[in-house]
Amino acid sequence: MSCTVSIHPSGRTIAVARGTSLHDALAAAGEGLALPCGDQGRCGRCLVRIEGDVKRRSTARLSAEQVAQGWALACQTTVEGDLRVIVPSQEELLARPEVIAGAEKAAVTAQACEHAAEPWVRALRLTIDAPTLEDNTTDWERLQREFARQHGVRGVVASLRVLRRLAATLRAGDWTVTAVLARGTWLEPDAPPRLLDLRPGDATGPSYGVAIDIGTTSVVVYLADLASRALVDQAAAYNGQIACGEDVISRIIYARRNGGLERLRSLVVETINALLDEVFARQGIAAEDVYWATVAGNPTMIHLFLGLDPQFIGLEPYIPTVNHPVPVRAEELGLRLNPEAVVDCHPGVGAYVGADIAAGVLRSGMHEGEVLTLFIDVGTNGEIVLGNSDWLMACACSAGPAFEGAGVASGMRAAPGAIEEVWIDRRTAEPTLRTIGDTPPKGICGSGMISLLGELFVTGVVDKGGRLNRDLDTPRVRLGDDGPEYVLAWAGDSNDGSGSQDGGRDRNNGRDIVLTEADIQNLIRAKGAIYAGFSVLTESVGLTLDDVERIVIGGAFGKYIDVEKAVAIGLLPDVPWERFEYLGNTSIQGAYRALLCRECRAAVTGIGNKMTYLELSADNRFMEQFTSALFLPHTDLASFPSVKRELARLAAPPGSEEGGDT
Amino acid sequence: MSCTVSIHPSGRTIAVARGTSLHDALAAAGEGLALPCGDQGRCGRCLVRIEGDVKRRSTARLSAEQVAQGWALACQTTVEGDLRVIVPSQEELLARPEVIAGAEKAAVTAQACEHAAEPWVRALRLTIDAPTLEDNTTDWERLQREFARQHGVRGVVASLRVLRRLAATLRAGDWTVTAVLARGTWLEPDAPPRLLDLRPGDATGPSYGVAIDIGTTSVVVYLADLASRALVDQAAAYNGQIACGEDVISRIIYARRNGGLERLRSLVVETINALLDEVFARQGIAAEDVYWATVAGNPTMIHLFLGLDPQFIGLEPYIPTVNHPVPVRAEELGLRLNPEAVVDCHPGVGAYVGADIAAGVLRSGMHEGEVLTLFIDVGTNGEIVLGNSDWLMACACSAGPAFEGAGVASGMRAAPGAIEEVWIDRRTAEPTLRTIGDTPPKGICGSGMISLLGELFVTGVVDKGGRLNRDLDTPRVRLGDDGPEYVLAWAGDSNDGSGSQDGGRDRNNGRDIVLTEADIQNLIRAKGAIYAGFSVLTESVGLTLDDVERIVIGGAFGKYIDVEKAVAIGLLPDVPWERFEYLGNTSIQGAYRALLCRECRAAVTGIGNKMTYLELSADNRFMEQFTSALFLPHTDLASFPSVKRELARLAAPPGSEEGGDT
Repeated sequence: MSCTVSIHPSGRTIAVARGTSLHDALAAAGEGLALPCGDQGRCGRCLVRIEGDVKRRSTARLSAEQVAQGWALACQTTVEGDLRVIVPSQEELLARPEVIAGAEKAAVTAQACEHAAEPWVRALRLTIDAPTLEDNTTDWERLQREFARQHGVRGVVASLRVLRRLAATLRAGDWTVTAVLARGTWLEPDAPPRLLDLRPGDATGPSYGVAIDIGTTSVVVYLADLASRALVDQAAAYNGQIACGEDVISRIIYARRNGGLERLRSLVVETINALLDEVFARQGIAAEDVYWATVAGNPTMIHLFLGLDPQFIGLEPYIPTVNHPVPVRAEELGLRLNPEAVVDCHPGVGAYVGADIAAGVLRSGMHEGEVLTLFIDVGTNGEIVLGNSDWLMACACSAGPAFEGAGVASGMRAAPGAIEEVWIDRRTAEPTLRTIGDTPPKGICGSGMISLLGELFVTGVVDKGGRLNRDLDTPRVRLGDDGPEYVLAWAGDSNDGSGSQDGGRDRNNGRDIVLTEADIQNLIRAKGAIYAGFSVLTESVGLTLDDVERIVIGGAFGKYIDVEKAVAIGLLPDVPWERFEYLGNTSIQGAYRALLCRECRAAVTGIGNKMTYLELSADNRFMEQFTSALFLPHTDLASFPSVKRELARLAAPPGSEEGGDT
Repeated sequence: MSCTVSIHPSGRTIAVARGTSLHDALAAAGEGLALPCGDQGRCGRCLVRIEGDVKRRSTARLSAEQVAQGWALACQTTVEGDLRVIVPSQEELLARPEVIAGAEKAAVTAQACEHAAEPWVRALRLTIDAPTLEDNTTDWERLQREFARQHGVRGVVASLRVLRRLAATLRAGDWTVTAVLARGTWLEPDAPPRLLDLRPGDATGPSYGVAIDIGTTSVVVYLADLASRALVDQAAAYNGQIACGEDVISRIIYARRNGGLERLRSLVVETINALLDEVFARQGIAAEDVYWATVAGNPTMIHLFLGLDPQFIGLEPYIPTVNHPVPVRAEELGLRLNPEAVVDCHPGVGAYVGADIAAGVLRSGMHEGEVLTLFIDVGTNGEIVLGNSDWLMACACSAGPAFEGAGVASGMRAAPGAIEEVWIDRRTAEPTLRTIGDTPPKGICGSGMISLLGELFVTGVVDKGGRLNRDLDTPRVRLGDDGPEYVLAWAGDSNDGSGSQDGGRDRNNGRDIVLTEADIQNLIRAKGAIYAGFSVLTESVGLTLDDVERIVIGGAFGKYIDVEKAVAIGLLPDVPWERFEYLGNTSIQGAYRALLCRECRAAVTGIGNKMTYLELSADNRFMEQFTSALFLPHTDLASFPSVKRELARLAAPPGSEEGGDT
């Protein structure tokens, strides 16, 4: 029996025998779809929408809702009658990631809050009577008088630096000036308004602020217009301190050297300043127009940034100098903003749970509802918070920088050219890649690591102990200088799956992009530490991971994280995928919200105060759980049922799969 | 007839003829007294006390009370019967200046007030529980907890600098520390207590403060122990800015040069730092133990010290940037104190009446009583305040630095070796000198200038126009390189009147000490400006100088000022001498009181706020009065009746004097 398949939007039609694979039918009509996973229904790249009669070999990748809406994977579907097929463009698939089966992915954007709070900084225009012999009040008292008269603002204070320019500015503007005023702070809400800057004439142009996230591995800045609350630009780079140690403990040890603390301090300030210079240059903005900075980071990062001695964070009983740092002027820290800019380091919670996590909780909103939520920030430290509006419990576990693309052979940050998604053909072990910006691959970022390791594991290239299968008949698995490795992309290779046409310029510096067995061990230790953290935290409050209603993932991954692969390697617990939500770098997003809103800033402090900190270094359960988690996905496969099923499905002979074969 | 004169304390007795000069009688008995003024009853150096019958040729130098007490000038007294004479020692005469006829002189000392106010800064000892895994509060919150528990102090704030040393200090002192805490300020009495320093262990030793007077010509520092309120040391030097101009206007002009303001700022900071180094070294005190500084000075000096642009002080309508400067940390100004030390610049009043005057009024106490008082601070600017507890009116007139020993050929500060009192023998024009510290003369200080010019005038060496009498038969008046001059001391000369025996080492650098006609003109302009200020100020409130009940003189003179001579040259008004009171450098004394007392500091602000400022630059009456005052003592000799009488007495033939001759 012949069935007619009409294909849209091309309008092509083809007749095929009943039982033909839909993928083959489309290919015969000249509309071949990529099959990166090798016809195994894992990659979701052959997703189409159908109207008509089909048989599905597997719907494992699709939700019931998606099946009801007619979504189908062409490789897993056979034609059973006349059929109308809508083929989404690649762009459409990528732009609407939510339609991609199962693996919950959400585009991450900086979002301001809904509060209508007064901004930290406002530019006010003042017109002032010129002095005379009869009205010979000083410049400063004259200005104060007009603040009160024209804007109802009283008791303004100013630093010596601002006073030093006062006389000249008043006269340069012919007694019209624009005052940049900071009103109150979170620490001293009743503090007098502070004059940060005075510009001659009517210069009520934009005033800017920056949110800064200082990660152990990566530093991110967001530039915002404080009045319009618009995100203007952003930039990220590796923390220059990496040269002095890859994780928090190494940095603390380095800081004990003679001059070590000052070197770490200046390295991170240089990193931040370079990012500031980058966005200011790109936007044509003067550093002097930036008046506020919020800073999030773990306690050690904040200590190093402020030049505070972190050494007692590293020694039992793990005591930071301060959880609530004082506001500091940019000049005092050497930040290239307006010298008077207020630099607000968000408060920490415990020795290893910091402002980054309070900011992340703010972004997640978990502190506002009753839904029991597990928040995890995957960074060099994996910090985990469990709770809801009633209570919050936090812990931290040292994951290392592997998920941030550091400390692994071909790792890189989530930047253009970073491989962020990988599919491996089970039969050939050949990879298909997707890179950020669809440019030729330069390295592998964190989400790419998860995707790659997950693929290598489910396709059997890597075993549960993390060892590469050297018996496979493929040049991709080889013995490199650092031991066994998998070659993800050959030097000059352009099979990045994006059809890039630039002929291989500027990629990977002429080296193969590989994942070594040592890298795999790093990744397994990292995911094991985080998973052990989940387990101990839930256990400590008498719950199990199944009780968790929502799992929020934060981290410096790319735009997406492949939850399925993260579960496959045992990084995330095996609970229904719809419970997962990926929010990207929650630390910078929380800092960004606090930059734009006093209420959000106050909420960060409130979150920090409410959070109970569980010190894992003092917890034997953690080491037990960690040891159990040093396998893919875990020693106890029973706690990963979906992974167990998938492994069984892939390992079984074709006939045993659900539905008929072609 | 022979009379018996018994002399005490020596016990000698001599018989002399009736009518013998008492001075001659004493000389015959081997008890010759110095007669610096040449037997004219002007110098008071032959003052003795008598019991018995005498005739007085003149009692002009003595008050009625002193005559009643038996005081007499030996040179002006003849023996009329048996007599008992008590000869005070030189030391006694100098140590009890109040017995010296007429010229009111008071020893000037730094005096703390009588208030019992809490000091600005206190050192508190704290013992802190060491942290444990159970009690793992941060270092800073732990310290805060103990501030509240042990001292009832809450909400302490600290700068980043102090926080940076916190962790190490707590542990270095094995959890006992000494906190140096500043409580509130005059600007923000409700401001949170501020931790200025943290010392390991129990280190509740002294905390120091400095009062600084920045004069246009001279800079003075007083070092005090803040807890015991004791004056520890003091030092003074010329303001290094003199190299850039001698008066306020020259400095303002210099500040307009490229880099000029910064150069002036750093010059005065260097001057202050050198004085601080000097007293700290002498007392063995560390700069880090000095936590508070009060600064008085005229508005231009305060502007330059703070790096504020003074140029609009110099241009009509004469507008300072600020009258009430913000408190600044020592570090920000480059002062070598504890970097966290609070530097409190006292408030100014108008463009040319500053914190120095408010401080001086505080010292004078004129703001507290009903006595109509005229306060004059003789410096490079002569500032004058008239009023009492009901009202205060102030003006300033540019005198130039002559009275501070600058800008005149042989001028120097009131320091050891400075000539501060001069007597001239009318017959020979030979001088007798008294120097500070009774050391060989090195130059002439301000009070010496007044004394010298007064003597030159009343002895006829200088005429009322300020010209030297070149017809006199004396080598003292000669034509020097800079025109006519009077030689006060020859190079290597030791006739300093003090019997110094050091043979002329280290004196005057081998040059004669002279007063040139140009110097005299400088002095006349200076005294004329000040006198014109008195006149206009009293006139502006409908009073005359006769209405003034008390005249308080401040200024960087030596220990004394010779009021008689100051009246003789027309610097001070000719009112009864008992109305005068000399308080020395009132600016530093006011700053010193405010350093030790919050109430005094608040009073300085209150005084400044209460003071009405009269701008003389806009007042035609001032120029008229100034022109009239450019003579010795004044165009209108009638307003100087005592000077007129004295000139008549000295000019008259011997027979016309009161009483008989020998």
